[in-house]
Amino acid sequence: MTKAKRTIDDLTIWDDAIQMIRKAQKEGVETVWDRLEQQEPHCPFCEKGLTCQKCVMGPCRISEKKPRGVCGADADLTVARSFGRFVAAGAASHSDHGRDLVETLHAIGRGRTTNYKILDEAKLKRIADEIGVESTGKSIKELALAVAESMIQDYGFLHNNLGFLSRVPQKRKDLWNKLGITPRGIDRDIVEMMHRTHMGVDSDAVSLCLHSAKVCLGDGWGGSMIGTELSDIIFGTPTPKMGKVNLGVLKTDQSNILVHGHSPIVSEMLLNAVNDPEIKKEVQATGARGINMAGLCCTGNEVLMRKGIPMAGNHLMTELAIITGAVELILVDYQCIMPSLVQVSDCYHTKFVSTSDKALFTGAEHVEFNYTNAGSQALKVVRMAIENFGRRDQTKVEIPQEPVELMTGFSNEAILSALGGTPDPLIEALKAGQVRGAVGIVGCNNPKLKHDYVHTILARELIKKDILILVTGCATSAMGKAGLMMPAAANQAGEGLKAVCQSLGIPPVLHVGSCVDNARILHLCAVLANTMGVDIADLPVAASAPEWYSEKAAAIGLYAVASGIYTHLGLPPNITGSETVTNLALGGLEDVVGACFAVEPDPFKAAELIDARIRTKRTALGLDA
Amino acid sequence: MTKAKRTIDDLTIWDDAIQMIRKAQKEGVETVWDRLEQQEPHCPFCEKGLTCQKCVMGPCRISEKKPRGVCGADADLTVARSFGRFVAAGAASHSDHGRDLVETLHAIGRGRTTNYKILDEAKLKRIADEIGVESTGKSIKELALAVAESMIQDYGFLHNNLGFLSRVPQKRKDLWNKLGITPRGIDRDIVEMMHRTHMGVDSDAVSLCLHSAKVCLGDGWGGSMIGTELSDIIFGTPTPKMGKVNLGVLKTDQSNILVHGHSPIVSEMLLNAVNDPEIKKEVQATGARGINMAGLCCTGNEVLMRKGIPMAGNHLMTELAIITGAVELILVDYQCIMPSLVQVSDCYHTKFVSTSDKALFTGAEHVEFNYTNAGSQALKVVRMAIENFGRRDQTKVEIPQEPVELMTGFSNEAILSALGGTPDPLIEALKAGQVRGAVGIVGCNNPKLKHDYVHTILARELIKKDILILVTGCATSAMGKAGLMMPAAANQAGEGLKAVCQSLGIPPVLHVGSCVDNARILHLCAVLANTMGVDIADLPVAASAPEWYSEKAAAIGLYAVASGIYTHLGLPPNITGSETVTNLALGGLEDVVGACFAVEPDPFKAAELIDARIRTKRTALGLDA
Repeated sequence: MTKAKRTIDDLTIWDDAIQMIRKAQKEGVETVWDRLEQQEPHCPFCEKGLTCQKCVMGPCRISEKKPRGVCGADADLTVARSFGRFVAAGAASHSDHGRDLVETLHAIGRGRTTNYKILDEAKLKRIADEIGVESTGKSIKELALAVAESMIQDYGFLHNNLGFLSRVPQKRKDLWNKLGITPRGIDRDIVEMMHRTHMGVDSDAVSLCLHSAKVCLGDGWGGSMIGTELSDIIFGTPTPKMGKVNLGVLKTDQSNILVHGHSPIVSEMLLNAVNDPEIKKEVQATGARGINMAGLCCTGNEVLMRKGIPMAGNHLMTELAIITGAVELILVDYQCIMPSLVQVSDCYHTKFVSTSDKALFTGAEHVEFNYTNAGSQALKVVRMAIENFGRRDQTKVEIPQEPVELMTGFSNEAILSALGGTPDPLIEALKAGQVRGAVGIVGCNNPKLKHDYVHTILARELIKKDILILVTGCATSAMGKAGLMMPAAANQAGEGLKAVCQSLGIPPVLHVGSCVDNARILHLCAVLANTMGVDIADLPVAASAPEWYSEKAAAIGLYAVASGIYTHLGLPPNITGSETVTNLALGGLEDVVGACFAVEPDPFKAAELIDARIRTKRTALGLDA
Repeated sequence: MTKAKRTIDDLTIWDDAIQMIRKAQKEGVETVWDRLEQQEPHCPFCEKGLTCQKCVMGPCRISEKKPRGVCGADADLTVARSFGRFVAAGAASHSDHGRDLVETLHAIGRGRTTNYKILDEAKLKRIADEIGVESTGKSIKELALAVAESMIQDYGFLHNNLGFLSRVPQKRKDLWNKLGITPRGIDRDIVEMMHRTHMGVDSDAVSLCLHSAKVCLGDGWGGSMIGTELSDIIFGTPTPKMGKVNLGVLKTDQSNILVHGHSPIVSEMLLNAVNDPEIKKEVQATGARGINMAGLCCTGNEVLMRKGIPMAGNHLMTELAIITGAVELILVDYQCIMPSLVQVSDCYHTKFVSTSDKALFTGAEHVEFNYTNAGSQALKVVRMAIENFGRRDQTKVEIPQEPVELMTGFSNEAILSALGGTPDPLIEALKAGQVRGAVGIVGCNNPKLKHDYVHTILARELIKKDILILVTGCATSAMGKAGLMMPAAANQAGEGLKAVCQSLGIPPVLHVGSCVDNARILHLCAVLANTMGVDIADLPVAASAPEWYSEKAAAIGLYAVASGIYTHLGLPPNITGSETVTNLALGGLEDVVGACFAVEPDPFKAAELIDARIRTKRTALGLDA
């Protein structure tokens, strides 16, 4: 089976991307699309989840002719074990990111860092209260320490309980308890998944899928939520502000630094360094007219949400940003950083600098950041970028088009504040059908799908139907570039949503952050459900990861579903080799947790599926569909 | 490339196994060897570690034509990421097993169980002292609670330190610190590995291999060591005793119960139930002349070491034991329980009963054991076995040969006690060259290798060279069946070792336990090194996993190497697709951690390699080689 070769116009909907792909081809720079083409067709066994390399009696491939691996595992078990590890890695990634925030808070509490401090004291107290940490009589430092220590136990198994379960509607908690999927400890449940998927441990596909759900709930209501809330406490809770997006945020006449990855711990320090008065003087001494910091991926989301730092692009734009030839330095922390970026940087003068001891890159320069040295390391990195400006070959520079404006900063605090401090106006709008429902559009890009096509069409279709969009992660860039994150986009919405947006001065697509910030969406759902006295599964809401690629996105999808939120995926995980697992995902889970997955690559059809779901939920609540 | 079809004589060295494989063929029962044949040839990409299913931009296969995956990962990175998860799963398995013991101790400390109690109070106090828990003024219950709470923190990241690091020679600790591979928290390091191996996190093969070592050190000096020491505290520290091995331990005229898996938590309760006076009466009422409990795999090792319960066989004997037709019930906990055992049981009257909420088996009966119900559940299970005796078809029963006697119970405490309380006599024997060195032969079976051939030949060759063998896991059955675990086997040893064994009345192959009990070997090495004032890497010792198959075995191998112990493997892990990773394993690690792996399927050659290593180490210590 051969597929017709895709032209550049099949790869992406964006002019800036097309221009850079052409430049890459002209300059002989390999991109993600080239490698995808090389890798196609994919191994059908691996694609269906039917391979196993979990012991050296194998490797095994399951098929009709070979229905069992050497150990006796059939297709169901083989798929379920692999999927279990897949989501465990996703949950581990978010949670280990959250852990870095906990350690930073701990260091603040113990007075071991001067680089980081508490920016939102009120939120620290609020969070302490929510997780059952007494704040009376404690200094801010003491409270930081107590909150950090409580969260450290969320990762362990001394308490077998997560602090943020206090947010979960009782009906949902009862269901989780009944099913045995209440997360006990973030790390514990992940490690147990690795244990369960060892040969000869959990050998029942359904049991493994239930534990997968538990692990993911520990991500959503644990690791990710901790990551989000502590980032707000340390770096400030986002408030609405303006920003810009696309490759046009890079400057021809300035030293451009890209920050890429997921954590604000490094990028916030870099931002301080960029704004340092000494540095500003130093840059004037070079030919550059300034230093320009721009974001990629979720690190980009973090600094966009909090500081309005411009966003250069999402996952599939990361190579292309370097291909502009205008990037002096790309500073990375961790997650979703294609190893190819080192090779792409090598094709230009770009310095690729890694910062985390858990994410080295062969061929990169490593400048390790920790809570005692982050300030000075950030200055060092900025100086590297300033110095590197002199090496730029301006004849190779090509920065496409002007950036697009967007509105960002919609933390739950900001949303509630816009509503006058309570969720009631939103609930009233839902009841009245002005806002028929809400959908979180989240996740990545995948070169198998036309870049940002599914994201943008799906969002446009949904807002037409008076469905409010909350956006995070790489979907953000797509919405921003499409102009959907400006208040003016209310004109593209249905009459009800349009009126609500116009009265509040907000866009119909609200930016709520990075991919750990999907925890904000969970929290908001919980707030709505608790206020309305219903379960999350009763709400007219859904989630969608239209162009996902990563293990983290799969974990997010599963914690959404296990929390009662119907979730659309633009393409399936590698589970289709098992009827049991596939049927569970696409329907069976509905009876178990009150929600399931839908897989649909066509954004128009996906919008219909989501709309039908919201219709059903509205009817069940006694509302006009 | 086609291989000649193997005859039954190529599959195993044992008569009992051959007889049962013939019976299986006659009765149309599929075994592990049939499935291996079906699965051959294995996928060469998977076998070399060159496939990746860690995101849905792929799956990818790396080759000369396709040197990078869609993300840009090359062969080195692809292999290193997969290997990292492979050993992480192994470490997770041992450590999650250890966690169950910690929770049991915690329950004892909190007075929440009447099923379990402290059997070795002196050891509890000794361990408390070693891990820095004050025992003065505490009751045994209070001390149990304090030790449990300290060990809970070993899994977390509040302390970033493991209690048993107190055992590690200073020189080794300094090296680990320098390399950044000192384990910080058992779960934390495993979860970090899952994070690091997500797309776009750790993208350097050497960095991933070093973290793999760290994760495995957290297993050896953490999870496994906790598992071993707490099992001793709760169920008693093993002392030398006699036992029996092979399928002949099953009884034609009794109700046979097999225990299989890894943890003593279930099997010790079953043993109590089997010995219950009421039960003895009940069994008399049936046709059976008694209840006969026998062990398989590491659960078998646990009850053999502590209680002298007969051992039916190792990994490749588990299906064959059921094929005798004489097994009323097989009770499993977790790990290495081939899912096929459910189907094999279905071919006979055998009841397959699972007990752990983390290890369900499709088609099995589940009787969940926990610390509040274990006693009564064990009685229930024994009654199921008694009742099932009536369903046995005696015409289908075939129990091969008489069992072989062996000596077991060589905990470090027992070894030191045999030596008069100090390691000095052993050190003197090492210095004098009577015992030229010691080798731990550990691990599993693998149907790719002739069953127990490599184990037994290697052991025979080594004892001839005056090298003492410590044996654990599935290697135990092999040594026992070969008669090497009887004092009389000293006759097969070289003159020096023979004299030492005869003077102490011990065999030249000492049984030190199950696969978590490899921690005993680590501990003994540390005791020797500390007493001699050298590093573990300086000792004339080695490890060997001649017929390994599992992720746990790979983790054991890596913690041995990272602890400074040269380790032989009978076959390689799936890493040969990466020159960097393979060269590191087979040599490069020597410069990093002072030990490396050797892969050699031929036991005679392996013995030469190990002997050469011991020779080198003896010479370096100034001893006669």
